[in-house]
Parts: sequence; structure tokens; C-alpha cells
Amino acid sequence: MVLLSQTKIATTGKKRVVIIGGGFGGMELAKSLAGTDLQVVLIDKHNFHTFQPLLYQVATTNLEAPSIVAPYRKIFKQQSNLFFRLAEAKQIDTTNQTVETSIGMIRYDYLVIATGATTNYYGNEEIAARAISIKSLEDALLLRNTIISNFEKALQVEDEMQLNSLMDFVIVGGGPTGVEIAGALSELKRHVFPKDYRELDFVKMDIHLIQSGGEILKGMSPAASKKSLKMLNDLGVRVWLNRRVISYDGFAVKLSTGEQLVTRTLIWAAGVSGLPVNGLSEECMQDSRIKVDEFNRVAGYDNVFAIGDIAAMVTEEMPHGYPMLAQPAIQQGKLLGRNIRRWEAGKAAKPFKYNDMGTMATIGKNHAVADLMVFKKQIRTQGFRAWLIWMFVHLMSLVGFRNRVVVLINWVWKYFTNDAGFGTIIGKPKENIPVEKVTEKVLV
Amino acid sequence: MVLLSQTKIATTGKKRVVIIGGGFGGMELAKSLAGTDLQVVLIDKHNFHTFQPLLYQVATTNLEAPSIVAPYRKIFKQQSNLFFRLAEAKQIDTTNQTVETSIGMIRYDYLVIATGATTNYYGNEEIAARAISIKSLEDALLLRNTIISNFEKALQVEDEMQLNSLMDFVIVGGGPTGVEIAGALSELKRHVFPKDYRELDFVKMDIHLIQSGGEILKGMSPAASKKSLKMLNDLGVRVWLNRRVISYDGFAVKLSTGEQLVTRTLIWAAGVSGLPVNGLSEECMQDSRIKVDEFNRVAGYDNVFAIGDIAAMVTEEMPHGYPMLAQPAIQQGKLLGRNIRRWEAGKAAKPFKYNDMGTMATIGKNHAVADLMVFKKQIRTQGFRAWLIWMFVHLMSLVGFRNRVVVLINWVWKYFTNDAGFGTIIGKPKENIPVEKVTEKVLV
Repeated sequence: MVLLSQTKIATTGKKRVVIIGGGFGGMELAKSLAGTDLQVVLIDKHNFHTFQPLLYQVATTNLEAPSIVAPYRKIFKQQSNLFFRLAEAKQIDTTNQTVETSIGMIRYDYLVIATGATTNYYGNEEIAARAISIKSLEDALLLRNTIISNFEKALQVEDEMQLNSLMDFVIVGGGPTGVEIAGALSELKRHVFPKDYRELDFVKMDIHLIQSGGEILKGMSPAASKKSLKMLNDLGVRVWLNRRVISYDGFAVKLSTGEQLVTRTLIWAAGVSGLPVNGLSEECMQDSRIKVDEFNRVAGYDNVFAIGDIAAMVTEEMPHGYPMLAQPAIQQGKLLGRNIRRWEAGKAAKPFKYNDMGTMATIGKNHAVADLMVFKKQIRTQGFRAWLIWMFVHLMSLVGFRNRVVVLINWVWKYFTNDAGFGTIIGKPKENIPVEKVTEKVLV
Repeated sequence: MVLLSQTKIATTGKKRVVIIGGGFGGMELAKSLAGTDLQVVLIDKHNFHTFQPLLYQVATTNLEAPSIVAPYRKIFKQQSNLFFRLAEAKQIDTTNQTVETSIGMIRYDYLVIATGATTNYYGNEEIAARAISIKSLEDALLLRNTIISNFEKALQVEDEMQLNSLMDFVIVGGGPTGVEIAGALSELKRHVFPKDYRELDFVKMDIHLIQSGGEILKGMSPAASKKSLKMLNDLGVRVWLNRRVISYDGFAVKLSTGEQLVTRTLIWAAGVSGLPVNGLSEECMQDSRIKVDEFNRVAGYDNVFAIGDIAAMVTEEMPHGYPMLAQPAIQQGKLLGRNIRRWEAGKAAKPFKYNDMGTMATIGKNHAVADLMVFKKQIRTQGFRAWLIWMFVHLMSLVGFRNRVVVLINWVWKYFTNDAGFGTIIGKPKENIPVEKVTEKVLV
């Protein structure tokens, strides 16, 4: 066994692929290099992979956190050429071919940047400090703690405005994440919270969805977009189109059209931006993403690559690069793995060709919209059938057989009982304005 | 529906039972008052009940945290006279019959203190600040994060002494908790970590158990005590009898007999003390516990009660009160519920009589010791049969059908794969000495 921490690269005689980030792209790449003569070093600031598409279900108490994550050491247990390090990349030095990390320097032969994306607050520091996003497991748990804490606090409040601030939710962004969280909150309002908080009147719980454009799910077909709006309306979600949030003080949300909403929970699902690593030339950046060619090679470098959300593979059809979704990341990770094998074998690499399998979003129980490509045939469906497809695809995409079993049990349980079970507050909620100001009541 | 936060007690016309703490005792009491004409107010600083006997399995990555807890609002969903409040009790005022809490004053007709116990460091502040205990879910998650982080850091370390400090564990206390955690760590050493950390040599991982007396599990039969010592020895746990820990600087553990052990993880399972609430007279305290009569009534008060770990019901056979375990708490909670109903009906109350059902401890896979009382017959068994009984009893004691199913799946999974799956670091580990000092290595 080669001890990485005590090993000069000369003693192994193997070329090293360093992958920064174990999201969908990084994980697939690492897997596809199994069995090669390369030494693969995966670094990530978490010791587990997160299945981001289901984070909103953790936030809304439908799933427990452990069932949508998988420790890297379990994923790669069988892969002897994979070395995982819990570390954060600080700086790339392309001249010396090293990455400076929180635990020391790592030398590379191939470097792959798969750092993904972070929430984009478009420079609004006030909102960045006070809103909650849903990009990481920590975010999702923070949102869950905040939702539950708000209802616990609401029991102590008499003032109507204060009550509204605790019972109302404002979601910014009408993409799949915003739509899915709005649907899930409306399920909680209808089926779960009235049983949990019998003392509160849930007519008062309002769910607002703010969308800057004139339609929601704008990346999807007009049919999906229109149907999802109707589904949200039927669920009682108030959708505000053609508006932006201009300020939020932890209590009042001001919209660009002058309206003002009151909430202590502003959920930000309005945009993402790439999360690059220091050390690449400025020329290779396009906004926050890294420009790559059709082999995911970073412009100007031979052995530095970027895949997934962080990579902007600009083509004629895709002037801004592929959408920041799981599928392009997975496909780029797999292809880069095969291309690295080809280069090592002295063969020519193959260019990336995106196989768009479509998009889906679920909106509460029994409802979803799906624009799918199956064997190059376009299938557009909305409603119960789309919901079944959504569940099947997400279940099968989860990492780990045990996770699939546990998530299935929870979904079946929830389907028949209409109850979401994981309303535990572990850790702290987000508190922009202290509780003390809210609770001056005496319970007598 | 009566809105508690907006209600003067006169408007309900009902007597109110206030229970501080929803552990085994408080939860059973609240349940046993279902269907009465009393208003039951349960306050707890967590919004969930914790099944403490399995905390060590969360700490050692065998179970996920959510499957051993249950939110109070789910437990009491059907009980319309139960009002839960997420609050901490600060001060009792027996003259005015109120409890001051973190969210305001609560008036009571009956007050029941069920605050349980906390870790007892016997006044050693240095150890209290640096050791990790296993009394709460937060403790268990902190211990898990620390164990996993230590192995991640160990990969970067060359110095043998530093490596020992990260790979070795010292457990203080030879009661069931200490013995169970030692057994679980030795399972991780044998079956799990060598696969997760192929680069480390697990011959170097030492597990030390320190016991002040001359035997472990001293509350159990001599057979159980002797057999468990043999089982631990067979698993490679180093048991140090007749020793106490006198100091711990975050690195070196000094024992009363002069030996010194090195570890960054000192697990404290050496004692508990009651966690009383301010406001009772000093006369009714016995050490940290509250003296109660055979009806769990606090000495000197008519309508103030204490149950479970916090209550010292002193009898001739039990000069220090009943052991601080789940069973006395459950039985006292149930009886007090029935007695309150009797008093309300103008009937005489029944005194507490402890039905000792025995004690168990599990020691790694396939091994446990059990001293049981079944239909007043003493059954003492050690080994595989005791282990099956231990599993069955703990599984059936869990709150919630879904929790039982998920725990069963995890145990069956672990039995056949020998793998513990929940090695995720969510939140922070305990770091007495910063990582930077350990990791000066460069990965080249």
C-alpha cells in the first residue's frame, strides 16, 4: 500500500489526476478512472457527496439528511487507485503543477476543476446575509430549523404582523428549486402543520413565489411552464411574476414593483454562479465560469480541465455554456475519464456532445411536469404520470442501495399518511431578528 | 380550540399539569394523562425526544441521528389535551405556582420536574472542557465528527506520537455506556475503518477503557461483569481497572496510578448528576437530585413532583434512590399519571414499587450480557442469545414505527456487510489542539 502522505510521486511512478470537488461531475470522473494505472486524488471540503436535487426535501422535513448523502470513502471503497482527502483548494500553480490546499500542497499531472456553483445574490450583501439558499446540506438543515422554529415561536405571538412574519414564506426564483420548495411548503401547510400546530390558524400561512420573468420554469416547454403555474395556484401558492426583490431587512421584503411582503424566512433560489479556484489566467474566465474547449480543457492549458457547473463550454448553440445541471456534469465527467484513458493510450480524444435527457420539476403530491427525451423522442407530460417518473428517476439516481431503500420507505410512508416526519431542530435556526422581541407574551 | 398563548387559565377552567422535560419519564407521564380533563403542558429545550440508549450507535456511525429521535409534536399528534412548548425552565416559584421559562411565565396546578441528568465531571473543569460525553444527540454527533475527522487528519501525519493521538481512544467509565462504546469502536477498528482508510495501519489504533473500580459493569451480576471483561479483551480493548483520570490537556491523559495515555479523543462516560431547576428549597435536595416520597412528591410540597433521573426516592433498600436508568423513569412517569387521575377523582394514590426488569449491555457484534427478570424469574445470559435479546428490546423500545423499520434495516445491513455507513461529518468536530500543528506535511 502506497502511503500518499509519505510518498514522493517518484516512488509510485504513476501519473496523478487531481480532482477538486466530488459533486456529480467529479464523482463520475473519479469512478471512470477506476482500474487505470493513474493515481486519482479527489479533494473535497465535505467528506460526503450530496444529492443536490433532493435537498429541498430535507429542508421541508420530508427526508432525513443522511439518506441523500454518501461518504466518499464508502462510494470508492472498492477503487484502490482513488485517494480521498478532506481539504479545501486554495490556489492553483500551473507552472509547478501543484494545488495549495488547506492540508498542504498536492502535485498533479492532470488537474480537473469540478468545484460547482454557489448561490448568486447578484452583489446584494443585505440579502446574502439574511436569506437562506439551498445549495448545500448545511443550507437545507438551516432552512428546516428555521421553518420549524418559526412555528414554535408563532405560538407565543399575538400581534398579527409578527404572526405573518413567522408563518409566511417568500421564495425568490421560479426555476425548478423555487417551484419544488413552494410545492413542498404548500403540502406542509395543507397536511402536516395543521396537525402539528393545532393552536395556529393555517389560513394565515402564505407562500409567495417571486419570479423576475413573465413565466416560471422558463427553461422548460410552454406547456410545462403554464401547467406548473396552474398547479401552484391550485395549491394556494401566490406567484408574483415580473418582479424582483430589491431589499430585505430580515422582516420586510420590498419588490421592484413597490409591493411589500412580510416574512422572517426569505428563501433564495434565484441564481447560481460558478465557484472558481484562484490561479488561472483571467482570459479563461467567462463571468464566474471557466471557459473550456470541447474536451473540457481550460483555454490556454494542456493538462488543466474544468467540468460541470464551473465549466463554460461555449458553442454556437450554447453561447453561455451548458445549463448548470446534474446531467451535463455527469456526462462531462464520464467523457473526460474516457478521454484521459485515451490520451494515456496515445489515442485521440472525443469531443463532448450533450445528450439532453430533459428536465423535470415536482409540485407537491401527485403533480409534476416533465419534458423528456427518450430515444431521441420528445415526451412532454404533466400531472400524476410525470410525478411517478420524477420519483423513479430521483430514487434510482441516489447513491447507495440503502439510501434508495430508506428514501422509498419514507416516500411510501408519506404518501399514505400525508405526514412528514423529520421536523427535528438539530443545530441552530437562522434568526435575523432576535426571538426576544417577538415573545413578550406571558402564558397564564 | 384553546389558544394557549392567548388564554388565561380561567377561560379553560381546566387544571394544568406542567411537565419540565420530555425524556422517558416526562413522555410517559404526558401520555398517561391523555383523555383526562387536565391541560398538560410539556416543555423541553429540544423539540424531540431522544432514545438515549442508542446514542452511542449514532456516535460510532452505526445509526443515523433521525432514527433514534422523535419530534414531540409527532408523538402527541393524537393527544388533544397536550400542549408542547420549546422552552427552557429557568426558575420555579412555588408560592405563585409559576415556572419562569425562556419564553415567558407558565402557571401550574401540578408541576412535574423531569429534567433528567447531565454528565458529571466531578468538578474537573479541564476535563469538562476537553472531553466528549454521550448524554445528548449533540454530544453523539460531536463525537462522531471528531472520530472521523481524526482519521482524516491521521492521513497527513508522520510523527508516531501525533498518529497515536489521532488513532487512539480513551473511554472513561466501565458502565454500560463505556463498555458499549468500547465494543463499537473495536468493531470499527476491525471491520470498517481498514476498508475506509486503506493507507493507515490499524494495528496502531488502541482503545482504552478506564474504570475506577476493580470490575466493569459493577451494577450487574459477577458473571456478566466477568464475561464482559473477557469479551472486551478478546476484541482488543485495553481495560485499565482501579484507575482514575486525573488530568487531560487535549493530548495526554494522566491516570491516578501514574500511567500516561495519548489521545485527542477522551470519551467521558464516568458519571451523571441530576439537573435540577432553581427555586426549590435546599432541604429537598440530596446531592444533585430532588428528594421525593413514594408518590414522587417533592419533600415539603403538595403539588410539585420529580420523576426519573432527577428524583431521589430514598428507601431502606435504596439509600441513594433508584438507579438513573430508563426503567425507573418510565415506571414513575406512568404511576404519577395514574396517581394524578386518582387524586382528581378523589381517590387515594398508590405508592411506587420498582419492577426491576434487569440490565443489559452489548459488546460488539454477536456479544452481549444480560441480567433479566422475566415473570419474577432471574435469567442471566451472555453471548449471542443476550445480543439477540438486547437488539429486540431496543428495537421495540424505539419511538415510532418508521424508526423501528429504518433501524432494523440498518442493523441487518450492518450484520451482513460488516459496514457502518454513516461516517458523514455534518457540523464541527471537537478540536482541543488546532489541526495546523498536526499537519505540516506536504503531499508531493
